[in-house]
Amino acid sequence: MATQPHVHPAAAETAEYRALARLLEPADVSLDGKRPWDIVVHDVRMPARILAQGSLGAGESYMDGWWDCAQLDEMLARVLRSDLDRRLHPAGALKLATLAALRNPQSLRRAFIVGRAHYDIGDDLFERMLDARMIYSCAFWERAGDLATAQEAKLDLVCRKLGLASGMRVLDIGCGWGGAAQFAAERYGVEVTGLTVSKHQAEAAAVRCSGLPVEIRLEDYRRHSASYDRIWSIGMFEHVGVRNYRAYLRKVRELLKPDGLFLLHTIGSNASVRSTDPWIEKYIFPNSMLPSVAQIARAAERWWVIEDWHGFGPYYDRTLLSWYRNFEARWPEIATRYGERFRRMWRFWLLGSAASFRARRNQLWQFVLSPHGVPGGYRAVR
Amino acid sequence: MATQPHVHPAAAETAEYRALARLLEPADVSLDGKRPWDIVVHDVRMPARILAQGSLGAGESYMDGWWDCAQLDEMLARVLRSDLDRRLHPAGALKLATLAALRNPQSLRRAFIVGRAHYDIGDDLFERMLDARMIYSCAFWERAGDLATAQEAKLDLVCRKLGLASGMRVLDIGCGWGGAAQFAAERYGVEVTGLTVSKHQAEAAAVRCSGLPVEIRLEDYRRHSASYDRIWSIGMFEHVGVRNYRAYLRKVRELLKPDGLFLLHTIGSNASVRSTDPWIEKYIFPNSMLPSVAQIARAAERWWVIEDWHGFGPYYDRTLLSWYRNFEARWPEIATRYGERFRRMWRFWLLGSAASFRARRNQLWQFVLSPHGVPGGYRAVR
Repeated sequence: MATQPHVHPAAAETAEYRALARLLEPADVSLDGKRPWDIVVHDVRMPARILAQGSLGAGESYMDGWWDCAQLDEMLARVLRSDLDRRLHPAGALKLATLAALRNPQSLRRAFIVGRAHYDIGDDLFERMLDARMIYSCAFWERAGDLATAQEAKLDLVCRKLGLASGMRVLDIGCGWGGAAQFAAERYGVEVTGLTVSKHQAEAAAVRCSGLPVEIRLEDYRRHSASYDRIWSIGMFEHVGVRNYRAYLRKVRELLKPDGLFLLHTIGSNASVRSTDPWIEKYIFPNSMLPSVAQIARAAERWWVIEDWHGFGPYYDRTLLSWYRNFEARWPEIATRYGERFRRMWRFWLLGSAASFRARRNQLWQFVLSPHGVPGGYRAVR
Repeated sequence: MATQPHVHPAAAETAEYRALARLLEPADVSLDGKRPWDIVVHDVRMPARILAQGSLGAGESYMDGWWDCAQLDEMLARVLRSDLDRRLHPAGALKLATLAALRNPQSLRRAFIVGRAHYDIGDDLFERMLDARMIYSCAFWERAGDLATAQEAKLDLVCRKLGLASGMRVLDIGCGWGGAAQFAAERYGVEVTGLTVSKHQAEAAAVRCSGLPVEIRLEDYRRHSASYDRIWSIGMFEHVGVRNYRAYLRKVRELLKPDGLFLLHTIGSNASVRSTDPWIEKYIFPNSMLPSVAQIARAAERWWVIEDWHGFGPYYDRTLLSWYRNFEARWPEIATRYGERFRRMWRFWLLGSAASFRARRNQLWQFVLSPHGVPGGYRAVR
């Protein structure tokens, strides 16, 4: 990663270079400036690509090594805080929105795509990036100083919010590598069924939870049928898609006993949208979509009473920076398999996501829902 | 109030009596049974009136003394929990929904109607029903054993959530009798502007806050223009109306500094609706309407980041029972002025509202909103 400031005379002469520089001014980000959040241009074609293609062009040109930034996360946070990304109207975003309007990208038929595309990338990568429990969602840093402690605190927060008690039957929708199921079974004595659409995750989760009252199933939640005392879904709703929010929440209600509780842990967006960022769509999470509070609350009507809402988006900034540090520190061990372009893609994603939470553009919410309202009220824990 | 169980042979013979009795079965409420939540029928015409007119007929026939119930709140909570009210489709509800679709019941021109119709009923009544600070909204009973302490706890909760500090300029939208403005000015050293559409309230609030840096204005919030560090609105949003939610939230944003905070305290509904109960509309709060989370969150988009959401609806059950006990205990002092039909109307309202919160049909929410998201995150207090 080239971090020394330098100017490309050829690039600086183009109209696109000057236009991009002007666009970045409100964010106090300079092209080829000397501050760590300034952008260092390596390729003369970079400004035109970003102006024409927005986030897709920015991400791809970064992957191609056309530019660098010593504090990529801070630069992107400044851009997002100033809403500069919204001044670009690239064709890619429009195309995604149109596609989302025409089809259901998260249909049952297509549900396993993200399992293969993202969660099956390689356990060697995730083992080096995540904590030992392999928890791939926002940690809870309220009383924690390191990633492992903060992830355990998040799992314990979920268990306490749900009031888990020994012998309860619990469903984990989107169980990942089984870390949450293992934690709840060990610490709270509950029986857990975990669902995932990733083959690698299902196999690893079964190994992780062997000897515990945990059943892992490679199954879409829509195909599942049973009755549970408690249900949680941590970091899976981002793959459900707005067309399926209502069906999802209705299905979860069907799977829960009338006096049960459901905890929904999801990234959220300040605005109601129907598609995702084109670069994220293409390289990181195909068919993903961030819900708004309005979309979730509307989809929950008739089926659920909202008992509690807890927002801690800025903790995802810290979580992603931990993952990024782990990723870079252990990179030499997996560099040959993944290659430099993947490394730059992964870095752009982790630091760009951190920036989106730091800029308060994206949020992290935990909802606690009950079918009929807890008599006397639900007492929220934190 | 006749509480001794007895049967009217004439009434019991009608088909309507038997139909109403069948309707009440799922709620385990009997006509002329012996339990305190059973209904005692005094007038043979009562069942037909309720079957034909729903909540309007139930409330009016109660006001007319056609029936009684020793535990009116418990009976109504049972009815609401069983959704029995939704099996009746009286003409009144349809008419209200149609009217709401055709006009804006909470237009600027009509805004002062509720001020005259409800809040100007008579301070002699409210002084006897409420706590000494005259706080006419849900109290916070988390660490309180009596109404006055619980209301102070609610006011302090609002001040702490907003992080009030000496010298801040604060706006109170819907300031009532000035109790919240007085509390914040005295305890937190802030300067408060209070808005109300009730002439009686404006006069009483000015007296209450005399000598403090508090300005009370008889003014609609839409006419107001200034810039504040903090804004709260406690128990006023119920009068705004769904057609005006977005304009309301945009206007509040205009009145707030970019790094400010806004606290919205409102009763809420589990479902998105566009009109209110016909009996409530006619007798208690003309032009009122309970918002859903979805409606508020949708109206807040673009203008606000939701920082915190806190639900404590069951505390309104307890608050309303306190008001009811005060009302009945002090009734002899005002009986001549208001008369028996008013007493039964007021009782039906207080206990019916308590029932709606006990049944978890209605909720009480406090939202904390910020214009751009607090950098590093908002730390919620409880």
